[in-house]
Amino acid sequence: MAIRYPNGKKYVPAASAAAIKRPAIQDSYSNRGMTLEEDLNETNAYYLERGLAVIHKKPTPVQIVQVDYPKRSAAVIKEAYFKQASTTDYNGVYRGKYVDFEAKETRSTTAFPLKNFHEHQVVHMRKVEQQGGISFVIIRFALTEEVFYLPAIRLLDYWARMEDGGRKSIAKAEIETSAYLIPMSLHPRIPYLSVIDQLHF
Amino acid sequence: MAIRYPNGKKYVPAASAAAIKRPAIQDSYSNRGMTLEEDLNETNAYYLERGLAVIHKKPTPVQIVQVDYPKRSAAVIKEAYFKQASTTDYNGVYRGKYVDFEAKETRSTTAFPLKNFHEHQVVHMRKVEQQGGISFVIIRFALTEEVFYLPAIRLLDYWARMEDGGRKSIAKAEIETSAYLIPMSLHPRIPYLSVIDQLHF
Repeated sequence: MAIRYPNGKKYVPAASAAAIKRPAIQDSYSNRGMTLEEDLNETNAYYLERGLAVIHKKPTPVQIVQVDYPKRSAAVIKEAYFKQASTTDYNGVYRGKYVDFEAKETRSTTAFPLKNFHEHQVVHMRKVEQQGGISFVIIRFALTEEVFYLPAIRLLDYWARMEDGGRKSIAKAEIETSAYLIPMSLHPRIPYLSVIDQLHF
Repeated sequence: MAIRYPNGKKYVPAASAAAIKRPAIQDSYSNRGMTLEEDLNETNAYYLERGLAVIHKKPTPVQIVQVDYPKRSAAVIKEAYFKQASTTDYNGVYRGKYVDFEAKETRSTTAFPLKNFHEHQVVHMRKVEQQGGISFVIIRFALTEEVFYLPAIRLLDYWARMEDGGRKSIAKAEIETSAYLIPMSLHPRIPYLSVIDQLHF
């Protein structure tokens, strides 16, 4: 039986955890099992520290039902539920412009399934586009560790195609032509501002 | 003893609740006891519906400690704590520009206490300013029902004065000269975009 540590998690040696989570396809890539969210948090922290952009992940929306106020200690939320997000997860400012994006990962190697987005997120992206904001999606193909910047206007086209009865995903080949590959680096891990520079400035 | 209804709240007749919450100083003002947050949510919904701006309140940040996953029903958060916000509460896009603000209310009639802000919120506003975003504070004097738009650069001056050992609040007279009165209306209730138009476009 595996040892359980006080944090309640099984002890898994680091090397094997990485092997389970992400096969070592690219030896040169030194990410070592970070999630897409962790990579983006690191990237946003890097941009923030250097005064390059102010971009944050929004808190997870929660519907709070019951809160206890024990004496002499912090309020405890005793009952709450996850709510569906009505916007995207990340937003902020870069060179005065509004930047807004969602980040999604797939283990498929051939296509990106559109069910990764909710209807209201797509509606939100359309509204941001109409208001002149910079709206996009960061898509990671987990098994090949490729990260793409897909402009929201392209996503909206694929979404419309699905609504018209077409395919429910974006083919990998389509992503390769309509999105921009973000070359991963050590620091920041996902340098997406370089794509914004190329497209908007 | 007051009657307690199933929602756990005491029954308070509407008229007296309004009287307790907000004395009827201005008869012409038809807000009827809405909170500043409710007024801003209504305003943002109004702007969103008409395609005038895309501005949302961020979810309350919560640190989730324990979640139950009952069979056949939604995940229930059983233990969580409120976290201090590291940014402001509202942000979004207006005519391509990044808009970011915090909203605060005071019952003082003579000054606005700076303890209403956390250090990191002020740091955040400074970073947004440096990045060319539109950053401000909406301040309501609850008893006179006056709502002001105070540009972040002014707030930063008052904050610096406090850090240099000066007063820990902004005098009402100072707000009257360095902020912009937002004339309340029925729909939208707090038409702050008109001040942005005046200052930034």
